[in-house]
Amino acid sequence: MSVRALLDALDDAALASLGVELHDLVRRLYPVPRSLTGDGVRETLRVLQEWLAGVATGPTTAAPLRVHEVPSGSQAFDWTVPKEWNVREAWIKDPAGRKIADFAEHRLHLVGYSVPTRARMPLAELQEHLHSLPDRPDLVPYRTSYYAESWGFCLPHAQRAALPDGEYEVLVDATLTDGALSYGELELPGASAGEEVLLSAHVCHPQLANDNLSGLVVLAALARALAVLTPEQRRYTYRFVFVPGTIGAIVWLARNPDCARRVVHGLVAANLGDPGPGASAGAGGFHYKRSRRGNAAIDRAVQVAMCDLGEPLEVEDFVPFGYDERQYCSPGFDLPVGSLTRTPWGRYPEYHTSADDLDLVRPDALAGSVRAYLGVLAALEGDRRYRNLQPYGEPQLGRRGLYRTLGGDDRGRERELALLWVLNQSDGERGLLDIAEGSGVPMARLEEAARALAEAGLLGS
Amino acid sequence: MSVRALLDALDDAALASLGVELHDLVRRLYPVPRSLTGDGVRETLRVLQEWLAGVATGPTTAAPLRVHEVPSGSQAFDWTVPKEWNVREAWIKDPAGRKIADFAEHRLHLVGYSVPTRARMPLAELQEHLHSLPDRPDLVPYRTSYYAESWGFCLPHAQRAALPDGEYEVLVDATLTDGALSYGELELPGASAGEEVLLSAHVCHPQLANDNLSGLVVLAALARALAVLTPEQRRYTYRFVFVPGTIGAIVWLARNPDCARRVVHGLVAANLGDPGPGASAGAGGFHYKRSRRGNAAIDRAVQVAMCDLGEPLEVEDFVPFGYDERQYCSPGFDLPVGSLTRTPWGRYPEYHTSADDLDLVRPDALAGSVRAYLGVLAALEGDRRYRNLQPYGEPQLGRRGLYRTLGGDDRGRERELALLWVLNQSDGERGLLDIAEGSGVPMARLEEAARALAEAGLLGS
Amino acid sequence: MSVRALLDALDDAALASLGVELHDLVRRLYPVPRSLTGDGVRETLRVLQEWLAGVATGPTTAAPLRVHEVPSGSQAFDWTVPKEWNVREAWIKDPAGRKIADFAEHRLHLVGYSVPTRARMPLAELQEHLHSLPDRPDLVPYRTSYYAESWGFCLPHAQRAALPDGEYEVLVDATLTDGALSYGELELPGASAGEEVLLSAHVCHPQLANDNLSGLVVLAALARALAVLTPEQRRYTYRFVFVPGTIGAIVWLARNPDCARRVVHGLVAANLGDPGPGASAGAGGFHYKRSRRGNAAIDRAVQVAMCDLGEPLEVEDFVPFGYDERQYCSPGFDLPVGSLTRTPWGRYPEYHTSADDLDLVRPDALAGSVRAYLGVLAALEGDRRYRNLQPYGEPQLGRRGLYRTLGGDDRGRERELALLWVLNQSDGERGLLDIAEGSGVPMARLEEAARALAEAGLLGS
Repeated sequence: MSVRALLDALDDAALASLGVELHDLVRRLYPVPRSLTGDGVRETLRVLQEWLAGVATGPTTAAPLRVHEVPSGSQAFDWTVPKEWNVREAWIKDPAGRKIADFAEHRLHLVGYSVPTRARMPLAELQEHLHSLPDRPDLVPYRTSYYAESWGFCLPHAQRAALPDGEYEVLVDATLTDGALSYGELELPGASAGEEVLLSAHVCHPQLANDNLSGLVVLAALARALAVLTPEQRRYTYRFVFVPGTIGAIVWLARNPDCARRVVHGLVAANLGDPGPGASAGAGGFHYKRSRRGNAAIDRAVQVAMCDLGEPLEVEDFVPFGYDERQYCSPGFDLPVGSLTRTPWGRYPEYHTSADDLDLVRPDALAGSVRAYLGVLAALEGDRRYRNLQPYGEPQLGRRGLYRTLGGDDRGRERELALLWVLNQSDGERGLLDIAEGSGVPMARLEEAARALAEAGLLGS
Repeated sequence: MSVRALLDALDDAALASLGVELHDLVRRLYPVPRSLTGDGVRETLRVLQEWLAGVATGPTTAAPLRVHEVPSGSQAFDWTVPKEWNVREAWIKDPAGRKIADFAEHRLHLVGYSVPTRARMPLAELQEHLHSLPDRPDLVPYRTSYYAESWGFCLPHAQRAALPDGEYEVLVDATLTDGALSYGELELPGASAGEEVLLSAHVCHPQLANDNLSGLVVLAALARALAVLTPEQRRYTYRFVFVPGTIGAIVWLARNPDCARRVVHGLVAANLGDPGPGASAGAGGFHYKRSRRGNAAIDRAVQVAMCDLGEPLEVEDFVPFGYDERQYCSPGFDLPVGSLTRTPWGRYPEYHTSADDLDLVRPDALAGSVRAYLGVLAALEGDRRYRNLQPYGEPQLGRRGLYRTLGGDDRGRERELALLWVLNQSDGERGLLDIAEGSGVPMARLEEAARALAEAGLLGS
Repeated sequence: MSVRALLDALDDAALASLGVELHDLVRRLYPVPRSLTGDGVRETLRVLQEWLAGVATGPTTAAPLRVHEVPSGSQAFDWTVPKEWNVREAWIKDPAGRKIADFAEHRLHLVGYSVPTRARMPLAELQEHLHSLPDRPDLVPYRTSYYAESWGFCLPHAQRAALPDGEYEVLVDATLTDGALSYGELELPGASAGEEVLLSAHVCHPQLANDNLSGLVVLAALARALAVLTPEQRRYTYRFVFVPGTIGAIVWLARNPDCARRVVHGLVAANLGDPGPGASAGAGGFHYKRSRRGNAAIDRAVQVAMCDLGEPLEVEDFVPFGYDERQYCSPGFDLPVGSLTRTPWGRYPEYHTSADDLDLVRPDALAGSVRAYLGVLAALEGDRRYRNLQPYGEPQLGRRGLYRTLGGDDRGRERELALLWVLNQSDGERGLLDIAEGSGVPMARLEEAARALAEAGLLGS
């Protein structure tokens, strides 16, 4: 068994069933009231733990999702872990006593980290605490105020515009007290203990399905798939982290300097359930934002793997905004971490609104994202440098049974080309990923060729 | 005050008034009979001296335009300063005694460096000394014969074709005697005495407005603007040279080896008054010819600055013909000197003809060229490498008042992006110009961000 | 005399006569029954020897085409020289006793290296030994079985489909016995004994005109042309090898390690008689496959030379299949050898079928290919690095008679530009080929300029 074999096993039926399963998991997590800290994050991690434990068998039970709690006030580089925020109840009552912007109805109604409040005020004063989207009057926007003490509510602009004058009652029955920041971590050890693949998703967004329940469930499915392998069958150690955005990634980096040093490849997972950046043109596909380094193996593996899978791919250079690749790619770390998404950060109309819901996220998109991530990991696992042991002219493949015997025929051509590419390029400097890039031959074919040549004694490492 | 502040002060009203002023200066210099040497060059430099002295106040008076005289016969590398040429009178009289091709009417009528002549000859013999443009029959071409002793006249082809047979009288009442080559030089010292910016324009062309009175007046205006700053407010020392083409630049290089070694950036200024290379398509803009090095800071600064100013820009690689960048970029010097022009050398139909006149050169184009040059200099002055002092993850901008406090909002976005770019890229290797190129964020925003971050203790050098 | 002079002498009349002569030579070689080994290869090499000896005079007689015989069973790296194969007679007789697929009629009817056979069998059994092209039912395909002992016949699919049931008689009256592999080699020594240009063509294909009689006759014509020069007039030693594909090139490499080490440039010649890859669009031209190195001098010289000749050129990166560049570019050798062809390997519809005949190959295409190869060699011979001995500013070309004397005129412009390019770029690092690539100035103009500048003492080496 190998990562490549896991990928090959993902046939149409397996994908269809996986998609339904993941969409159900998104649905279950959707109303959980997440924020930077608090019980919603804990509950989310607990559901993921349960999902992983309930389905997987064998090795997974030995590598559970561990939840870490970091007390408020802890230092992490330039940052301090904030107070923990939990909400019991939050709403506005209009002059007629009707509840509007009720947190119980939708988690986006309350500005994240709103301080406890109980007050009465006229509409004019209330307006300073309201947020809406004039150009999309039916949607509730997503707003937070993590690092400035204030409170506020979000509501559809159409509703806001129709609010009558009069006295309003406001309740934010929340606690903002010393507690902890929670994050989850799952490690699947591999053959090479010193080389890790980091897979990270942010766990802090409330009731938004694509951003980022999709990232959480895709990584969970990936962890479950990889857990089927024994440590010897995984070249790399895989480390999954489910962290609150920014502060969570910084806390993880601060607490795990050794892990950070071992990261040889990494991806930040987000927005993996929408139809993809090319959907309007009939080709969904993916978007990849390169690591800060720009030409790390992960950057090349993503392009090769998406090409091999036939997935359309948009690629853009690193920019220092987006998700937690900002932290992993800060100049003090400069880790080889990119971000593979469907439609990226901020570029779909439903982004950071109540329209990022259970309809935006599709079962087939979720399952296809798991397949895409497996494809990237398979390419990384298969990438090795070999040395042609018969480098003077081509070796005679025919007498080793590696060659079609009838010259001029077209059969076996693709297999033969892979053999020739690997032989010609394997000078100890270029690896299979280099060869895939230069030749267009799929990694899977190159890996097969390298195996056959190694068995025939023609290829060494 | 800074170069960037000078640029920011150039608002529409300032540009309009500057344009009129510069066009008046072109008009005043237009009929002065310039050549490689002679009193016309001296008069041109004197007018520029007067213009600079008459308008500028303060520091400029301490850094006047100095005129240097280099005697005929002086050696400069492979060259010898030629004899000085001055013309009192020059014309042809047709068989009816009517003057044609009269130097008094237009300086282009006489081939530059024509030797003294008084003769009578039939039309057939005269023809060997005439130059015209059959495909543009109404224009007088520009011709010189600096390094071969001969004489000649230029006239419209239509006029030439209508010349009757008969005896013609020719007068070239000129002197070609030992004298001197004159050039002008103006130095504005800066904070870094060891690093100079060279700004060069050729001063030898007679009655041609765009080529190169436009270059002379744009550099004069630039010198006047920079003179308002104190030496401490200028990062670089600025050296303006107004030299006869080729021989003048070579003489300057031969006499100033120390200056040449200090040149860290440079531009050759010419053709800066026409509407620009994209004028026929409604976008005038500029043309930039890269330095021989091809990726010097000046080459990158021009592209960034023109982009920031919204000026369309054509860019081409170095070629060893054109203006005095040929000399500055000769392999023995290989200075980082490019050439920023409106329509370049030889590519506008009026080039080197009597149609390069006061109508071709426009006030707004002249003033816009000063703005463009200031933009380039501002980018060069602002380009520095910094080091992020909190490079592990992002520093917390919020508690330092550097960040919009309400997550999810769009306000302050541009300012925030500049902060993030500078923090992420400042690893001591990449400077602001690199960041501008990679990010598309204007240099001015990056400079502001770097200042704010340095004040907050987050950025060092 | 020089290679460039040979090229210049190839005017239209010379090309026309050369084309006819080469097509006659192709016609003469067409029916000779070539294979990997055997008397057909010997006869082919003998005809080339005779053609070279019969026409050329002088130096060529001192450097004849030498034929080497390498015994069956000899080792060459991973390979063993196979038994020698010769055919006396081969055919199938249908149930009515009529001969079909008769080797006497067309050499492609018999699968190469078919083992001796005399048998009777029903059609169903015979079918397993037949090869045809269902999608091109009128053509005979080319098939070989070098390294698996079997026999077979090739015939038009239309004929095969119409074969009646019944008993067929098969005769392969051939010998497959210890003998030798034959190849030809011709060396033209040059001034620099330590630097060789390798020109290689495969000699093993039976009755196929473009692939590769065209390659053989073009190289023969090239050898004859270069033989006119004295060794002092050739910068490089030229080594022509006419080898059976794959095994022949490997044998040559194994027996000539010193030659291989001396190869500084090389080309594999094939498919040089068809109208060219752009023929259907009205521009025939050439195809070039780069060496494995990708930016060797040969790779650059081909592009410059084809541009200078006005020949359209397709270029592709190295791939490890095609002709014997596979062997020369194996990682143990990695020689700077590309392949310059008309339509390349496998991309014309007649490829490896009986339609690759005397009509596909055209006299003008053959002669034009000789011209193209001469152009490439001229560029390689002319490429040198110089050093500008007056690198501080431009030297004064005028007083050395190297410059048009009348400024502003357009005459002599191209010659002057070549002078300026060579002067500006000759810093001891960049050679004429670099300058040609950067400037677009033809190599011939740059070589002239360099000569003139060297004579004037302005350029050293």
